[in-house]
Amino acid sequence: MNEFALIKQYFHQQSTPDKGVILDKGDDCALLSPPIHQSLAVTTDTLVSGRHFLPEIDPFALGHRVLATNLSDLAAMGANPKWFNLALTLPNFDADWLKAFSQGLFNLASQFQCHLIGGDTTKGPLSITISAFGEVEASKALTRCAAQVGDDIYVSGTIGDAAAGLAAYTDKNFAAQRIVSEQSVMFLKQRFDLPQPRVSLGKKLLGIANAALDISDGLVADLNHICQRSELNAVIHCESLPLAQHHKDAVGFEQALVNALSGGDDYELCFTAPKAQRQTIKNIANDLHLPLTLIGEMLECAEGPQPTCSVLNKGRVQNLAKHGFQHF
Amino acid sequence: MNEFALIKQYFHQQSTPDKGVILDKGDDCALLSPPIHQSLAVTTDTLVSGRHFLPEIDPFALGHRVLATNLSDLAAMGANPKWFNLALTLPNFDADWLKAFSQGLFNLASQFQCHLIGGDTTKGPLSITISAFGEVEASKALTRCAAQVGDDIYVSGTIGDAAAGLAAYTDKNFAAQRIVSEQSVMFLKQRFDLPQPRVSLGKKLLGIANAALDISDGLVADLNHICQRSELNAVIHCESLPLAQHHKDAVGFEQALVNALSGGDDYELCFTAPKAQRQTIKNIANDLHLPLTLIGEMLECAEGPQPTCSVLNKGRVQNLAKHGFQHF
Repeated sequence: MNEFALIKQYFHQQSTPDKGVILDKGDDCALLSPPIHQSLAVTTDTLVSGRHFLPEIDPFALGHRVLATNLSDLAAMGANPKWFNLALTLPNFDADWLKAFSQGLFNLASQFQCHLIGGDTTKGPLSITISAFGEVEASKALTRCAAQVGDDIYVSGTIGDAAAGLAAYTDKNFAAQRIVSEQSVMFLKQRFDLPQPRVSLGKKLLGIANAALDISDGLVADLNHICQRSELNAVIHCESLPLAQHHKDAVGFEQALVNALSGGDDYELCFTAPKAQRQTIKNIANDLHLPLTLIGEMLECAEGPQPTCSVLNKGRVQNLAKHGFQHF
Repeated sequence: MNEFALIKQYFHQQSTPDKGVILDKGDDCALLSPPIHQSLAVTTDTLVSGRHFLPEIDPFALGHRVLATNLSDLAAMGANPKWFNLALTLPNFDADWLKAFSQGLFNLASQFQCHLIGGDTTKGPLSITISAFGEVEASKALTRCAAQVGDDIYVSGTIGDAAAGLAAYTDKNFAAQRIVSEQSVMFLKQRFDLPQPRVSLGKKLLGIANAALDISDGLVADLNHICQRSELNAVIHCESLPLAQHHKDAVGFEQALVNALSGGDDYELCFTAPKAQRQTIKNIANDLHLPLTLIGEMLECAEGPQPTCSVLNKGRVQNLAKHGFQHF
């Protein structure tokens, strides 16, 4: 089967007309009618087999994940997803694989009315690059550089679950030291396999939050980007971190804390907001049925040292390099 | 060196401010201010090592080529290049390689004031995906589906050179049967290494040409896309094909013809235009110092058979399957 037949069979299925698309798949370019009073938010993520996912990954989960990582970047700007393109490099043609992959992809895309507008398929080591496009009012967009002194720091959902889910797949000693229920394992694997981009939250935070990003590399590593771009320090409290019960049951409190601080792949949002917004943020959490947990505060940074994120454990600074926090 | 330092060192160098970019590299997304009365043309191309380029390729040429293939798609729509993003998967960190690659990339980008707005760097088998963004008036954009009965068919520049250039790199028997000057070999290799996207031509053809595409898979294969999308037949004349003297000198007339009909990677434009535009097209060729050669005509297609492109050689239909045209 050649490239054109392949594209047609698996990737033309989602052809809901979209007013903003003048011309899509099948020409040299897609032609889009961009929003008039909004900016276009553009993001790109590549997932490489063996690096970002296990070669034996369920293709449905892979299709979901590669779009989810991009939609999560849009969510972190408060942008409304509109379109995406897909560059798919495949080692061979496997109809079952392509069917499941495209189902995972379009299942998530249709949740957000996000339309595939084009791309490229090539032969080579399995790798996928998606660029996603959203719209947002530029003056309200949630950047990394606008955190303010005294801002509360929040995270959405529970964190560290995906790191434990990955360990459940790859670590032979997972659950060696305790009895772990099947439900807990399933919960953690699903949190790794099918991350939920927090698009609705991002949109609701426009005009409320000062800075935001999505947690893909680990809470402390990612929060450090807000620190550096905003030129402020951050302090977060271990006791406040939202840990899922299944997570603590499966790996114990200590390891769950390590996962929450340094585990990637959760795709929850971390954001900062003025203290005056606390009630509004509680209301948003209620509306979305999504926990939004206050975990720390942005602080002034003296001239000289690099702005940084500190972790307090029962009031004492946690030295992350010791105590097995070796991910940093 | 981590991802952020790597990006900063090699890819922040081109920081000419662009009024349309509100926020670029370093946040979750780039924020673009799209053109108000124009459409946004979007294209994506992936190049995989060993598939689209030789692993030992000069990294400067690779940087040029990967952007050129995308700009060529924009040119084929008549779009004006504005921005691009870059997803770069590298097996290891090689400072010299990255320096040369980024120079090839930015050298071409700056020719067209096309700005890097973001991307992703990952570890894995060498592969590069670029998405490029341009602006064009939607009603005038050059598509594949708007060719008309009686349209002239043109190609820009000379064609088949890149296929001969690739052979000069890879085919041990290249030049075994004839004396080939060093100049000819250099000309052909350069045509393969450094394809020139025909951006100025594409823009000048707006309102003049009816249909267009760029030749990446070979003239006949690509022209077939115009036939199928426009539901018309095409006939082209071997005698008319523009062959470079160096090309004929190096491989002989017969092989040059094969290369011109079926060799890819030229990134010249193929377009159709009403006969009434002949003088205008001559003027464009003069203005751009770029040959634009009339090679055939679009014809009605009876219902039933697939629309197709026929090749006439001295008035007789060339059966491409015979006579060594084995590329089809």
